[in-house]
Amino acid sequence: MAEDPKKGDAVGSGVGDREGEEEQVVNPWEVTAKDGGKIDYDKLIEKFGCQRLEESLVRRVERLTGHPAHVFLRRGVFFAHRDFNEILDVYERGEKFYLYTGRGPSSEALHLGHLVPFMFTKYLQDAFKVPLVIQLTDDEKCMWKNLTVEESKRLASENAKDIIACGFDITRTFIFSDFNYVGGAFYENMVKVAKCVTFNKVVGIFGFTNEDHIGKISFPPVQAVPSFPSSFPHLFSGKDNLRCLIPCAIDQDPYFRMTRDVAPRIGYQKPALIESSFFPALQGESGKMSASDPNSAIYVTDSSKDIKNKVNRYAFSGGQDSIENHRKYGANLEVDIPVKYLGFFLEDDAELDHIRKEYGAGRMLTGEVKKRLVEVLSELVERHQRARAAVTDEMVDAFMAVRPLPHMFS
Amino acid sequence: MAEDPKKGDAVGSGVGDREGEEEQVVNPWEVTAKDGGKIDYDKLIEKFGCQRLEESLVRRVERLTGHPAHVFLRRGVFFAHRDFNEILDVYERGEKFYLYTGRGPSSEALHLGHLVPFMFTKYLQDAFKVPLVIQLTDDEKCMWKNLTVEESKRLASENAKDIIACGFDITRTFIFSDFNYVGGAFYENMVKVAKCVTFNKVVGIFGFTNEDHIGKISFPPVQAVPSFPSSFPHLFSGKDNLRCLIPCAIDQDPYFRMTRDVAPRIGYQKPALIESSFFPALQGESGKMSASDPNSAIYVTDSSKDIKNKVNRYAFSGGQDSIENHRKYGANLEVDIPVKYLGFFLEDDAELDHIRKEYGAGRMLTGEVKKRLVEVLSELVERHQRARAAVTDEMVDAFMAVRPLPHMFS
Repeated sequence: MAEDPKKGDAVGSGVGDREGEEEQVVNPWEVTAKDGGKIDYDKLIEKFGCQRLEESLVRRVERLTGHPAHVFLRRGVFFAHRDFNEILDVYERGEKFYLYTGRGPSSEALHLGHLVPFMFTKYLQDAFKVPLVIQLTDDEKCMWKNLTVEESKRLASENAKDIIACGFDITRTFIFSDFNYVGGAFYENMVKVAKCVTFNKVVGIFGFTNEDHIGKISFPPVQAVPSFPSSFPHLFSGKDNLRCLIPCAIDQDPYFRMTRDVAPRIGYQKPALIESSFFPALQGESGKMSASDPNSAIYVTDSSKDIKNKVNRYAFSGGQDSIENHRKYGANLEVDIPVKYLGFFLEDDAELDHIRKEYGAGRMLTGEVKKRLVEVLSELVERHQRARAAVTDEMVDAFMAVRPLPHMFS
Repeated sequence: MAEDPKKGDAVGSGVGDREGEEEQVVNPWEVTAKDGGKIDYDKLIEKFGCQRLEESLVRRVERLTGHPAHVFLRRGVFFAHRDFNEILDVYERGEKFYLYTGRGPSSEALHLGHLVPFMFTKYLQDAFKVPLVIQLTDDEKCMWKNLTVEESKRLASENAKDIIACGFDITRTFIFSDFNYVGGAFYENMVKVAKCVTFNKVVGIFGFTNEDHIGKISFPPVQAVPSFPSSFPHLFSGKDNLRCLIPCAIDQDPYFRMTRDVAPRIGYQKPALIESSFFPALQGESGKMSASDPNSAIYVTDSSKDIKNKVNRYAFSGGQDSIENHRKYGANLEVDIPVKYLGFFLEDDAELDHIRKEYGAGRMLTGEVKKRLVEVLSELVERHQRARAAVTDEMVDAFMAVRPLPHMFS
């Protein structure tokens, strides 16, 4: 599982390769497939220089933790990694690591795609019993979305409630927003990272231009430094060699490619990554969902009626155009959104297999599959809404308090 | 005294105009006169778009404060300004303002040139009875001088002792280092400023290149935001319109030209400036002193013997090459360093006039002028050394504590 040294952490390999307009673009702010088609994940792995997450690693996770692999792991939603094997080595030796994930709080309500990394991170926390830091990049969204500082901070706090509702363990979880937490050891690490990265490098990695403001150019170190335990002296004082594992969608890879390039130059461990594909839009799998089109996604604030409506009206179907043809040819599962969504959220492997088989053979109709999806999503969203309603401002403050977590490794 | 709107705060007017190698270069990191000659301050004023500090403003300061003008004011060491007249208007109406100055802690020992802004700022604080914030840009020096974070912080703390030794009033003075203080409201303002400044702009203002690291490119907002009272909620909460006056050497003008350009766009007051010329090197007046040549400057750590040696051996003399010629032609005061230094530090106007007259006429010899300078500097440096020896670590902590200053305006 060794990285190809010519590729691994290749910084400046041109994330958003735009030479030909037809190329796919994947960076933290844009995900566009080639010619409006599907994202080519094999090509992304090749281009970014990360590793495919092999079945053997999934089995190793199950063996080491004694937990069955999460749906997202056994069905390949998390499909790529960097040094995840080393994290498992560390764990196998009886040492620990910590998890780092985050969110850019650009909107009030999260959609299902936003929940994916958090659901998976919660599973990792439960399975490995390790501490977790969650960064809310309110500064980033203030700069990219041109929100006021106040509005960005408010959204960070609202989003924290949805994150807490995913069930994180308060004794092992520190949530922070950049506007609240940047400073001290964290800022020192920002400066250490910034010293190692030229403007030309961030142009190569992130596609910035000379007309971009210096806030954008300054930002990558902010997302880089939670990868280093010394950025959290209240948690990891004296544990400078603690390894960090970052579960995230693969569009965040540029940040951590940069981070991994810099880490050894400032005497730090490289963070490891476990990376997911994108949750598809209702209209089809050509990229991420669009925040500007509310009908492209199911939101955690949607009612069961909203969900039923959206799934029935907008979820792209791989079924045939007439019942006769459908019975004859079966559904095209490769493009069918209801089946894809069930792949994320229907936990029962046997039932999913049954649906894929029956639907693919034309014995099950789109309406039936959509009905089952509406049930699954409604249950998920209702459960989330109940959990979120129980999250008080005090709980947000408690998760976000800068405090030691004395039992975080036990 | 109105600024020329075509020039005032002209951002991107090209500080370090390098097209012709012969041009003078003045920016925060380089001061080089044209063809090794003297800095042309008239040209700087024209280029930067600031105002000459007229005699009438000096008289107005004396009238308003009831204090005689400081030597540096009445002898034109502080020779340029931006909106200083508005600060006096504010003061005349019975309102207050605050002072902001700073230092990049790149060396252990300060030289006399480093003391100039602090001596002058102390005078302003005493005369106007206003609060003062002093920024130690340890982050800047860590990035530009490639010092470790720890060494930069240590130098900041050592330099704070020299600054405190200048006699600042602890009830009106907050000293902070960036590594300790960046965060919270200060960081929010950094983001607000950074959003308004493109890479192209900092290239125009500071001369950065694509090969510079993003730490440098990120830094200008850090030096900008102490100009805004909201960066100090423990001092100026609810006083968002409090005006700020910045005493500094004119090489810092690019930072504040940028700051003044941004301020109205983020709803803040522009800071006012009062700007000094450079303290000349012992070898002559072609720029600032060089930290790499200890014989180019008198340090506050020098002994009386060191001072005597340096002045006698290195201070460039405008005297003639023989006593006969000197008696005949007199000294050239335009290039004579001992007389220039006395102009900074000999407070007695009558004595200075007498020396200039006698020396210029050839009746006084270089040796006599140097002897008087050694006395003046030795007394100044010994006084500083005694004051610095009395500064304890606890005093440093007290000046640097993030605390309200309840009597800062009284």
